[in-house]
Amino acid sequence: MNRILKPGDTIGILGGGQLARMIALAAAPLGLKAHIFAPEAGSPAFQVADAVTQAAYDDHAALEAFAKAVDVVTYEFENVPVDTAAFLAGHVPLHPGARALGITQDRLEEKTFVSRLGIETAPFAEVNDEAELEAALAEIGRPAVLKTRRFGYDGKGQVIIREGDDAAAAFAAIGRHPAILEGFVPFEREVSVVAARTEDGRFAAFEVTENEHRHHILYRSTVPADVSPAVAAVSAEIARRIGEALGYVGVFAVEMFLVVVEGTQGVIVNEIAPRVHNSGHWTLDGGETSQFEQHVRAIAGWPLGATERRGRVEMTNLIGDEADSWHAVLEEPGAHLHLYGKAEARPGRKMGHVTRIFAED
Amino acid sequence: MNRILKPGDTIGILGGGQLARMIALAAAPLGLKAHIFAPEAGSPAFQVADAVTQAAYDDHAALEAFAKAVDVVTYEFENVPVDTAAFLAGHVPLHPGARALGITQDRLEEKTFVSRLGIETAPFAEVNDEAELEAALAEIGRPAVLKTRRFGYDGKGQVIIREGDDAAAAFAAIGRHPAILEGFVPFEREVSVVAARTEDGRFAAFEVTENEHRHHILYRSTVPADVSPAVAAVSAEIARRIGEALGYVGVFAVEMFLVVVEGTQGVIVNEIAPRVHNSGHWTLDGGETSQFEQHVRAIAGWPLGATERRGRVEMTNLIGDEADSWHAVLEEPGAHLHLYGKAEARPGRKMGHVTRIFAED
Repeated sequence: MNRILKPGDTIGILGGGQLARMIALAAAPLGLKAHIFAPEAGSPAFQVADAVTQAAYDDHAALEAFAKAVDVVTYEFENVPVDTAAFLAGHVPLHPGARALGITQDRLEEKTFVSRLGIETAPFAEVNDEAELEAALAEIGRPAVLKTRRFGYDGKGQVIIREGDDAAAAFAAIGRHPAILEGFVPFEREVSVVAARTEDGRFAAFEVTENEHRHHILYRSTVPADVSPAVAAVSAEIARRIGEALGYVGVFAVEMFLVVVEGTQGVIVNEIAPRVHNSGHWTLDGGETSQFEQHVRAIAGWPLGATERRGRVEMTNLIGDEADSWHAVLEEPGAHLHLYGKAEARPGRKMGHVTRIFAED
Repeated sequence: MNRILKPGDTIGILGGGQLARMIALAAAPLGLKAHIFAPEAGSPAFQVADAVTQAAYDDHAALEAFAKAVDVVTYEFENVPVDTAAFLAGHVPLHPGARALGITQDRLEEKTFVSRLGIETAPFAEVNDEAELEAALAEIGRPAVLKTRRFGYDGKGQVIIREGDDAAAAFAAIGRHPAILEGFVPFEREVSVVAARTEDGRFAAFEVTENEHRHHILYRSTVPADVSPAVAAVSAEIARRIGEALGYVGVFAVEMFLVVVEGTQGVIVNEIAPRVHNSGHWTLDGGETSQFEQHVRAIAGWPLGATERRGRVEMTNLIGDEADSWHAVLEEPGAHLHLYGKAEARPGRKMGHVTRIFAED
């Protein structure tokens, strides 16, 4: 279902966290209103939205009223229940659509989809029981990573199986859920491409970004990434092909491993995120258009914005009590503070981020 | 009354128009909530605020509840009723304060204040009746501008008196309100300085901006202005001294006429606006810190942000149906659209603006 929005229209957003909040903040200068649908009281996005529905994702009455009140629906997280997405899509345009959600919610489906496009991934195999796990380990070797097919994020729902580790214990550790075993990729660095696609096939990618994780959570992104021009071009082309094959509408991220084989850099796709992405936060101050504005433009059926960079950019997450440094950030010339309006700074919780723009080397 | 805010605190804003809206949008990334107090249903700022009070400015019960719900109060327009300001200031810090409001609400007080600082203004005289007007005209000469002392903006409440014009008719035209007669300044251009001051006396000015008006409404601002380095320095110094003398807290604008006497540029102060200002909108994309973020930092008692410019910047207002060009603006690389969420595009109504950033010449 297609619809081109006009100023004054309303974007419905499922989820009330920082990504929804930053989408809402980007929608306003474009003349669009935001309506947030989230179950949690005090959701950060509620603070900046024109309208709010606090309800469960399976509350069909609330979903129906929400669908009637908005002109398009998008979401900030890939684990939108399939039923919720299907119900909404019956009433109002849903971007990104059910196909993108279905594939990216399942690691096995996702890896299969990517490799069928002829794009390299880690070797992988389906695991439904101990016997399949043993067979997969024999094929893929150790170390390998066992991951639940669904509902994993920030390192949750996965376990590394090394030489000597008990496979059955590893399967138990992830709750014996349907899983995927992935070969361990000896990568140099992690990179990502954040890109946008419109319903009529226009595409624009931000520059490939280099990402540093700590404790499985993104710690820092830097642009430009230290990659060869060939890798930069290939990464963008991979994103374009994935977007095309998904019939994708909106902003998405492709997380990749940078590998070096015989001195030559290459990339292996790790994961697709069907949403704005932490590794694209640098675009808020460092890009000509932010990923959030780009997402709004894409789902509105509007022209995509310019993706140029304003300098060398570094984005650092503020995790847990790191957000206590807010005053020091405000004192630092050229640093831009982004706090998410969360009341409680729990360990591991993303409380905000800082972007720093430097003159090009 | 001083209070240093912390993330999670709430800024109360009187007025629900585009300036309040852009202050609220700037407060969010700093972790602050916005509570808008405005009488008009459907106020643009309501769309992006955490909380809203729709009530009259003389509704003391509503004002008291508002004051209790917020940590500081600011405003988007200088015509805040004195009673409203005084009532709020008795409950919660009000920035800018009563002194700045009192002086800037009255053109005669304002001109007197500025000229007592030894800063040049147009020649002016108090006018309360026809006899005073005739005396003032005899002293100042024609052409001259007769303005109501209070409640004028965008060219409203003023009339030019030229050779042969009937003085009594001019006085009648402005409703025989207490007035000020100002000498006509043969200016080359109009410029302004937007600056911020904190309660403890820190000060930061954005670069002097050149402003082009059409039909008494700002049409375009450009930075850098075509002024001499001496004028640039003097303009910032004028703003600093005015801020200091007012004990000002927050962002304010000083509108000035650029005059050329015997080949040398000079400035004459025309008006002080005790608020964020249309001629500072270019800072939203063109400045390292926007005037809106700067205002929030100042009233929060926080460090002021960097005032560097990101290139040559042009800000163009979208007045009335000019906002219909929104789609063309979105198609233009490097143009940034800012719509104000107003439902109806009446003639002369500020509907939005566009900033364009160009590489430095």
